[in-house]
Amino acid sequence: MKKATSLSELGFDANGASSGFFRPVSDGMDSTPTSHHRRRLTKVSVIGAGNVGMAIAQTILTRDLADEIALVDALPDKLRGEMLDLQHAAAFLPRTHLVSDTDMSVTRGSDLAIVTAGARQIPGETRLNLLQRNVALFRKIVPALAEHSPDAILLIVSNPVDVLTYVAWKLSGSPFRFLLAEHLDVNAQDVNAYMVGEHGDSSVAVWSTLSVAGMPVLKSLQESHSSFGEEALEGIRRAVVDSAYEVIGLKGYTSWAIGYSVANLVSSLLRDQRRIHPVSVLAAGFHGIPDDHEVFLSLPARLGRAGVLGVADMELTDEETRRLRRSAKTLWENTQLLGL
Amino acid sequence: MKKATSLSELGFDANGASSGFFRPVSDGMDSTPTSHHRRRLTKVSVIGAGNVGMAIAQTILTRDLADEIALVDALPDKLRGEMLDLQHAAAFLPRTHLVSDTDMSVTRGSDLAIVTAGARQIPGETRLNLLQRNVALFRKIVPALAEHSPDAILLIVSNPVDVLTYVAWKLSGSPFRFLLAEHLDVNAQDVNAYMVGEHGDSSVAVWSTLSVAGMPVLKSLQESHSSFGEEALEGIRRAVVDSAYEVIGLKGYTSWAIGYSVANLVSSLLRDQRRIHPVSVLAAGFHGIPDDHEVFLSLPARLGRAGVLGVADMELTDEETRRLRRSAKTLWENTQLLGL
Amino acid sequence: MKKATSLSELGFDANGASSGFFRPVSDGMDSTPTSHHRRRLTKVSVIGAGNVGMAIAQTILTRDLADEIALVDALPDKLRGEMLDLQHAAAFLPRTHLVSDTDMSVTRGSDLAIVTAGARQIPGETRLNLLQRNVALFRKIVPALAEHSPDAILLIVSNPVDVLTYVAWKLSGSPFRFLLAEHLDVNAQDVNAYMVGEHGDSSVAVWSTLSVAGMPVLKSLQESHSSFGEEALEGIRRAVVDSAYEVIGLKGYTSWAIGYSVANLVSSLLRDQRRIHPVSVLAAGFHGIPDDHEVFLSLPARLGRAGVLGVADMELTDEETRRLRRSAKTLWENTQLLGL
Amino acid sequence: MKKATSLSELGFDANGASSGFFRPVSDGMDSTPTSHHRRRLTKVSVIGAGNVGMAIAQTILTRDLADEIALVDALPDKLRGEMLDLQHAAAFLPRTHLVSDTDMSVTRGSDLAIVTAGARQIPGETRLNLLQRNVALFRKIVPALAEHSPDAILLIVSNPVDVLTYVAWKLSGSPFRFLLAEHLDVNAQDVNAYMVGEHGDSSVAVWSTLSVAGMPVLKSLQESHSSFGEEALEGIRRAVVDSAYEVIGLKGYTSWAIGYSVANLVSSLLRDQRRIHPVSVLAAGFHGIPDDHEVFLSLPARLGRAGVLGVADMELTDEETRRLRRSAKTLWENTQLLGL
Repeated sequence: MKKATSLSELGFDANGASSGFFRPVSDGMDSTPTSHHRRRLTKVSVIGAGNVGMAIAQTILTRDLADEIALVDALPDKLRGEMLDLQHAAAFLPRTHLVSDTDMSVTRGSDLAIVTAGARQIPGETRLNLLQRNVALFRKIVPALAEHSPDAILLIVSNPVDVLTYVAWKLSGSPFRFLLAEHLDVNAQDVNAYMVGEHGDSSVAVWSTLSVAGMPVLKSLQESHSSFGEEALEGIRRAVVDSAYEVIGLKGYTSWAIGYSVANLVSSLLRDQRRIHPVSVLAAGFHGIPDDHEVFLSLPARLGRAGVLGVADMELTDEETRRLRRSAKTLWENTQLLGL
Repeated sequence: MKKATSLSELGFDANGASSGFFRPVSDGMDSTPTSHHRRRLTKVSVIGAGNVGMAIAQTILTRDLADEIALVDALPDKLRGEMLDLQHAAAFLPRTHLVSDTDMSVTRGSDLAIVTAGARQIPGETRLNLLQRNVALFRKIVPALAEHSPDAILLIVSNPVDVLTYVAWKLSGSPFRFLLAEHLDVNAQDVNAYMVGEHGDSSVAVWSTLSVAGMPVLKSLQESHSSFGEEALEGIRRAVVDSAYEVIGLKGYTSWAIGYSVANLVSSLLRDQRRIHPVSVLAAGFHGIPDDHEVFLSLPARLGRAGVLGVADMELTDEETRRLRRSAKTLWENTQLLGL
Repeated sequence: MKKATSLSELGFDANGASSGFFRPVSDGMDSTPTSHHRRRLTKVSVIGAGNVGMAIAQTILTRDLADEIALVDALPDKLRGEMLDLQHAAAFLPRTHLVSDTDMSVTRGSDLAIVTAGARQIPGETRLNLLQRNVALFRKIVPALAEHSPDAILLIVSNPVDVLTYVAWKLSGSPFRFLLAEHLDVNAQDVNAYMVGEHGDSSVAVWSTLSVAGMPVLKSLQESHSSFGEEALEGIRRAVVDSAYEVIGLKGYTSWAIGYSVANLVSSLLRDQRRIHPVSVLAAGFHGIPDDHEVFLSLPARLGRAGVLGVADMELTDEETRRLRRSAKTLWENTQLLGL
Repeated sequence: MKKATSLSELGFDANGASSGFFRPVSDGMDSTPTSHHRRRLTKVSVIGAGNVGMAIAQTILTRDLADEIALVDALPDKLRGEMLDLQHAAAFLPRTHLVSDTDMSVTRGSDLAIVTAGARQIPGETRLNLLQRNVALFRKIVPALAEHSPDAILLIVSNPVDVLTYVAWKLSGSPFRFLLAEHLDVNAQDVNAYMVGEHGDSSVAVWSTLSVAGMPVLKSLQESHSSFGEEALEGIRRAVVDSAYEVIGLKGYTSWAIGYSVANLVSSLLRDQRRIHPVSVLAAGFHGIPDDHEVFLSLPARLGRAGVLGVADMELTDEETRRLRRSAKTLWENTQLLGL
């Protein structure tokens, strides 16, 4: 059932914006936008209109971070339904141009492209096979994006390996901050604590970065609660790692937190905010990881209009550094197996 | 799989907010909240954690409209998953207390309760049977809400009759404003146009209210486009009525637009904004509808902290009034069949 | 007293952003912004750092409408003091780059330039003399702006004739909406009412545009209150015209309302919102004003990224049209006296 | 010149909100607010309508933090002018009720009262005399506030001693964060650094709290820049202390930064945000200050709906602790001279 979604589709003549009610001012005043010199408006593309992609698109829309949002998905009905649902909210939001298509050309001229698409594991499929299917998928998506938007910042939210572990990693900092904020009864925005390195089980919690409004709190916690010993801290780390698995176990997927999290990155990138975010960056050369190990690990990075502007040279204990290097080594060995 | 979601559940001692890092100031300064006189914080309850309920809860959270949000649903896992997913976004949002339970007592002390729950039609079920099942459901929900929050404003978003037609009605104004804003290339927030009366097919489009930034535009449109005749206008009305069905046909449900729409109502209600919204109000006595016809019809109403503060005495043509009264009559006759 | 306002001025080595804590990622990842292709960030210049200019700059900052704000004023101390005062609020606001100088070259590359500067009447000075001094001032400011930012939208907030009458005109719609919103006890954002034409005493109130949430209300007001006759309406118009004089009489100047009002225009212009605002546009050809009468009158205009996109063809009564034409004629005759 | 500022003052009959256009719904639906059980709306009073008071009131209005704002000042014309100027912005802002009066009774029922009033030093006046005049002023203001709003949180922004040193202290953290953010080219919201103790010259900079996004940076700065030695750090501290004096020297007063700063406190207090802010709290018992020394010193405090909820037990070096205690001792001795 294809329905008309504009008055022109309903058979109405739509010759230009004025449509008989608005008239351009006379020649004495040039109000024509001349495309060659005017600042282009900000465009964000979201590839994949599933739960994660739509939560991201909706939060970007609510926070008024883009002038145009393009949605791409392989399923045309789902895609059109999601676009119409967002468009029907136009009267409650700042004006944002929404477009959608199954063809990547709709992303042309993006400032930022967010990839949420990814192949899911088929029951019984080997991990390597899944990985190879995802590499094939990205070989289609990424060059097409680059062709249509050569200057776009690329933000990969999907996980070529395993959706579950990815999300666990992506949100690692977030439940951490929430758990500690609840415990100390402070605002989670005042809490900082970093988990670095690989996603999932082998992530490294940098306990020395545990701070409230910039003040280190680990020592104070340990003095007042005999319970914050090594083993207990490991229990907290595990709870954080497991938190996304738990949400997936309960509701089937995660969406809201990752939507807010990514919209926050988008704000730093497009509005050149130069804030610090834990994102996966090329880790070669940091914390003693060999320069030829082209692996991506989560580290606190300074983000701005040009993408990743720098990586924080955070202080790690010897044990933390050792674990981080071990992660890098394992990951590098696995990456080479792909034969890219 | 029940996971720990707080440090106390992980076995940590959590004796009060200070937890060893924050200490209360000394006796000379009384910082204890004394519950009997302090302003209560604003609490909103959302009954039903489905797509509509969660889009509403998330938009209320994003727009920072409540100090506490309570979620109620019959499915404990889905409910807990949705709550955790929102909680994990704490670091990106103003601090809001989130609670959830399958028991209605979690809503105690709400300022506003939003009911999104409703029975869905079983294939082959008669309309009357569905309606009776919904009446039974509401007989459980509404008294429980009233018991725990006697002063709450009640906002019914679910549809006791038919989810599809309800949503069509609820959003009636919204796609209307979007369609016209696109056609005239103006911001949808500047467009006004009312559909009044019953939801769905028998809704009445009040064409004389078609305005842009307060200026009536119908006459101008009709002069410049021969196409805006009676028949054409009826085509537009139908497209609007069908727009929600279309979204449901494409993506299976609607969520985003209704989320924004309801959050907008919540803002007017809780922050006493006294804005005009088309909502379903007791229509007896308006536009010649008999005083004893206790039917609810959509009319432009002024909303504030006390709920519906007034209904606009909008000018209708004779034909529009006639249609509105006919709707009221039919609805009243059907309501009486329920034998409430 | 010139104080250091950066660590480099205090003698600290500031070699780039990383400063030893942040390091760029390695060569494998190009994070260098390449100015030739990246979208330029949005820059707004405010000429004049008086009460009006600063209220505008501060509201643009609060609403996060620009990536860079440049302030220009002839008084260097006042200018530097205002810039530092805004900079000290950095921790409470999204990151915005603030620069200031007495030289217009600081405005280079602006997307929008807002002129709030203007000569004030010297006691005993003739109106013509003041006007000529202002023409001289603008002959310095405007070409310099155009040279440094050939593509900027120019927004003139200052009044080359008379600060008082200007402000009366500029805000004409605003107290109108406030007075009516208070009277009807609705949100002022739901009220629309236009005053068109010249500023000050000869402005024309278009009573037929008086609407609440798009619904015309004049007829209803007149029916329920015998007092809304012709004479009474003229009394309201005068009260609106006088409202800015009143504020100036009481506090010496106006600032807050004009700050919000201009920030609202800025949002529509820079974010391409296509909303309708009453602004002064070239009125030749509208409502029967001869095409060669190059006068600027206030009319409801649709604003977007390219500036004034169109002017609403609003319906006026014969009397309203007659008054508007008379205004245009008088203004045109006066303009010709300037001998430009 | 007393002008009418409402339609009723212009002679219009204003019998209730509906005014002929809105009508209440019929008896079947009770929409009357019953004051005894409905949540009171949030009210903030600002005492003093000078530059500081008005910048605070305007920022609270912009950020939509209160349902009602009451302004009090001794100068009736200035006061009325400021209120009207804010009211004329109604169409650009969420609806907020604004009231003003020279009589303190207008503050009745406040949730929060912000005192910005204070006596200024008369040339040649002794410090003690100024102090005593301010004590006299506060003896009038504070009991009147307490009488009309016994449950209000009291926020003293004015300085009973010396406006200049006060502001230097109040903003101490803020230019600090700005200077460091500029130096490191990061967002100032990511920078934390505390100055504690007394205001002005004897303030103590807690260098160990210097952090970016929660990561300590002093050590890294010192390693990469030989220039961050003891003497250099003292130079930074002095620049921070002097920054407000500098603004006052340049523009005559400070307003914007203090407006944002206080609005931020208001948000934490009224919306129960439990964020950490450096504010002046009763310091007896902290960091070894004797329990009977009833002095107020700046320390990082956790703020919520009940006011100061706790004070952070931050780690200080021995030297920092020694300086803090010395400040407390001097201040305590001076306070006793007042003979309160």
